[in-house]
Amino acid sequence: MRVLSGVKPTGTLHIGNYFGAIRQFVELQQKYDGFYFVADYHSLNSNPESSKLTSFTKDIIIDYMALGLDPDKSTIFLQSAVPEVLELAFLLSNVTNMGLLMRAHSFKDQQAKGNLPNVGLFYYPLLMAADILLYDSNYVPVGKDQKQHLEITRDIAIKFNELYDDDFFILPEPIILEEVALIPGTDGQKMSKSYGNTIEMFAPEKALKKQIMGIVTDSTPLEEPKDPETCNVVKLFKFFASTSEVDDMKAKYRAGNYGYGHAKLELFEAVKRYFDSARKKREDLAADPAKVAEILRRGSEKARAVAIPKIQRIKKKMGLVGNIY
Amino acid sequence: MRVLSGVKPTGTLHIGNYFGAIRQFVELQQKYDGFYFVADYHSLNSNPESSKLTSFTKDIIIDYMALGLDPDKSTIFLQSAVPEVLELAFLLSNVTNMGLLMRAHSFKDQQAKGNLPNVGLFYYPLLMAADILLYDSNYVPVGKDQKQHLEITRDIAIKFNELYDDDFFILPEPIILEEVALIPGTDGQKMSKSYGNTIEMFAPEKALKKQIMGIVTDSTPLEEPKDPETCNVVKLFKFFASTSEVDDMKAKYRAGNYGYGHAKLELFEAVKRYFDSARKKREDLAADPAKVAEILRRGSEKARAVAIPKIQRIKKKMGLVGNIY
Repeated sequence: MRVLSGVKPTGTLHIGNYFGAIRQFVELQQKYDGFYFVADYHSLNSNPESSKLTSFTKDIIIDYMALGLDPDKSTIFLQSAVPEVLELAFLLSNVTNMGLLMRAHSFKDQQAKGNLPNVGLFYYPLLMAADILLYDSNYVPVGKDQKQHLEITRDIAIKFNELYDDDFFILPEPIILEEVALIPGTDGQKMSKSYGNTIEMFAPEKALKKQIMGIVTDSTPLEEPKDPETCNVVKLFKFFASTSEVDDMKAKYRAGNYGYGHAKLELFEAVKRYFDSARKKREDLAADPAKVAEILRRGSEKARAVAIPKIQRIKKKMGLVGNIY
Repeated sequence: MRVLSGVKPTGTLHIGNYFGAIRQFVELQQKYDGFYFVADYHSLNSNPESSKLTSFTKDIIIDYMALGLDPDKSTIFLQSAVPEVLELAFLLSNVTNMGLLMRAHSFKDQQAKGNLPNVGLFYYPLLMAADILLYDSNYVPVGKDQKQHLEITRDIAIKFNELYDDDFFILPEPIILEEVALIPGTDGQKMSKSYGNTIEMFAPEKALKKQIMGIVTDSTPLEEPKDPETCNVVKLFKFFASTSEVDDMKAKYRAGNYGYGHAKLELFEAVKRYFDSARKKREDLAADPAKVAEILRRGSEKARAVAIPKIQRIKKKMGLVGNIY
């Protein structure tokens, strides 16, 4: 069974991304045939600066591998290295009514803000459908906000199957990523790039420390006891420390003479320790771009070996004369 | 200077197509570097039956060559043999506002009929823009109804150039096909497949004769004089006969004892004569599919030799990491 997921290269990864998604991807590759891609085509609809898109793309590949995506287990590739996906998106556009895309959250959100978005954004659920269907994916890990887009994918697949061949496309199932692992940001809201409240595990040590020391706490003086149950620092610490370490910290909170600064330093050390081997692996990968390129080349080849025969079958079904290329 | 045009394989060619467009394409290839393609991707938005799309595509290629498109002078290719065009359409979609496509006639016509069309139809002007811009086309022969779509192409090219590189895309100019050559159909309206009033030059002789004998005339009896100036048969005869032959026919109309049936038979003979060598050429091509495939293969190779480096440059400009394929 195949599981597929794509990640948009729109910024630096943070620990919310890790606990919310990447950790699950790493687990899923033990059980499934994992197809993981960097969704560089998708990121174009926000009109990124070219140089930023390039560097985010390069970063995210090594981030993911450093965090445990294993090119010997999974197929890791660049979306834009398999242009057949755009061919499929276009072919599917002809069996997709405008209304289906107009009901997509991604489009309606923009409309609600009074924006008429670019065509790329409108087209986004179609490209996502092509990403999934091109590779006969059985499962797609999605956050709650992406569930509707997966339903659109299923609707499009059903329509194509009705028109051309009952059993042609596999109808993908969602694997809903648990919201349990909701990571608070430095201001207590959900951690998100758009709120500017992130902690970036691969930031240089100084920057990482600054992010953690900036976690918002109350103004209880150092010497007084504090409530560990409502404190963001403790909430975050739980992700990185053993139960006994967390119990220790809670006891210190309750005893007094233990400041938020102390707790933040412990958190800083715990985060560093937690990502220590990933950081080393990341440094090795960053120092060997030829190796990364080779991994991507192999991944793209594997992905294209699935994509090309599939798209040829689809073209034939739709009556396109044949492949002279 | 390059001239580009595509033809949708949506039905059997008729003499209206020939005098309205094909004849001009044949002339233009003397003066320009002609790129002519069969727009099979475009035809998908009307959801044709697969087998019909395939056979219309095969027919239209040999029709065009029989009528004078010369593979030694021009590049003749299948749109779907150069999938880079879909990649370009998608890349351009990210710099194209929804509003621009919503103002396109092709979309508004459907909307006016109360239809919300499929996404393929909505996307149509974007794919047309990609067709034109991918090959650095300088000129595009268009009917009046296509003029707006060429303006949309220019708008998109201007937007891309503004964002990425001032002089990147050539802004194409229209060559407006004269309406002088407006061909009446068998019922006197403009000849058009959708009116069912066509005369198909490559139909089997019996069918061609039936189409011509079916031209609507008035009920003036055989022996009475007739007005040649208002008769459809004479109007059509002018396209196929010399001035003296036309004058002859007019004289017979005025003299009486000359029936519409006689005139139609003369027209039938003139049409056959006019397309005689084209019909022979068509038969030869139809008998040699390997030759046609080879011509298309060469044409597609030539087109891809322009398309691939162009799309690579565009991807690089937009920050897509690079080509590992």
